[in-house]
Amino acid sequence: MYRDLSHPLETTTAYPGDPSVEIEPHATHETDGYRVSRLRLGTHSGTHVDAPRHIEPDGRPLDSFPIGTFSFDALLVDCRGKGARDAIERDALPEPTEDDMLVFDTGWDARWGTDAYFDHPYLASDAAAWCADHDYHVAVDAPSVDPTPTENAGGDEPEGLPAHRELLGADRLIVENLTGLAGLPERFALYAFPLSVGGVDGAPVRAVAEFRDGDDATESPD
Amino acid sequence: MYRDLSHPLETTTAYPGDPSVEIEPHATHETDGYRVSRLRLGTHSGTHVDAPRHIEPDGRPLDSFPIGTFSFDALLVDCRGKGARDAIERDALPEPTEDDMLVFDTGWDARWGTDAYFDHPYLASDAAAWCADHDYHVAVDAPSVDPTPTENAGGDEPEGLPAHRELLGADRLIVENLTGLAGLPERFALYAFPLSVGGVDGAPVRAVAEFRDGDDATESPD
Repeated sequence: MYRDLSHPLETTTAYPGDPSVEIEPHATHETDGYRVSRLRLGTHSGTHVDAPRHIEPDGRPLDSFPIGTFSFDALLVDCRGKGARDAIERDALPEPTEDDMLVFDTGWDARWGTDAYFDHPYLASDAAAWCADHDYHVAVDAPSVDPTPTENAGGDEPEGLPAHRELLGADRLIVENLTGLAGLPERFALYAFPLSVGGVDGAPVRAVAEFRDGDDATESPD
Repeated sequence: MYRDLSHPLETTTAYPGDPSVEIEPHATHETDGYRVSRLRLGTHSGTHVDAPRHIEPDGRPLDSFPIGTFSFDALLVDCRGKGARDAIERDALPEPTEDDMLVFDTGWDARWGTDAYFDHPYLASDAAAWCADHDYHVAVDAPSVDPTPTENAGGDEPEGLPAHRELLGADRLIVENLTGLAGLPERFALYAFPLSVGGVDGAPVRAVAEFRDGDDATESPD
């Protein structure tokens, strides 16, 4: 069975400084006999994938990865105990496995559309380095793997996007702004095939989980 | 194994009257320390899915379909013998099967980026009606299931998008602008999870085929 893990773009909460999402009619039934809409968005709008080029000037663009890369063997990591602006440290990580992606379930997606969404937990840089060292791609149900700079940012938080640098600098991918992780089985297939934009730093995706009926965790989904 | 069936958006060939695709830098390494790009496109740019609302004012929008709908059991239909502006008639269709999508391989994707791309073969309305009657979604490696109105349009071609109406009017979906069908096995999984745009007429997708190694047709891919 399949589950949508994507936020709808029409209500997207833009990362500070990012382009907003706009959706407008272009052709209409009344005038043209059919309907087509215009979209304006950023490569990191809504649920999206970060490529190494997002952070590294000479980093790999998204289209340099084989398409099968974006079908991930995902392992959930329960981080629902973390609070606002808490670090996810090395001790929250599992023993190494054969999966190729760790999906951090913070439950922070429930705050989508509010200012509190940007006070999310983040991945400590040594935890990010461990993920890269063990060949894991990373996904989060929050806007970033690093603290988001808002007026609530604390003085002891890392600057300079260190978790991004650890992961993208090692040619790992990052999927951000997931939703709907509650009740997923511990292991599932995560499809995050990004829009085909050549040479760029990232792209929006429709992220989807596939898992066998009966693999559900005991907790029911939201 | 996986194969990308999507045209890259940066070189998209816009359907007559549709928005063009624009990709521009938004944040840059030099100024911001990271790179983000801005995208402008239409809901039917590049490889995309048509929802019933594209044609029917009260038709279902894309987000009214369960996400698993967009994981299709696809059956290839070889139409490579068809020429410019030829109709694909009922006699080109297979016996009914348990698959839920017919993928029409016309080879017309080779003309992407040229004016000749719009002189593609099209689906005759009785062939489209047969697909809808047999609960098939439809995909094509061409810009439309109906003839595209250009100066080369012939006087005996249907007007008013009849193949679209037969399919979308029956709540079937249409995937257009596929590429890379050559050498695929006759049956494969086609993932076409559309960008999560609420309430609309269609959306761009990254279309991807999955098939078992060894299922390849004897002909090698392009």
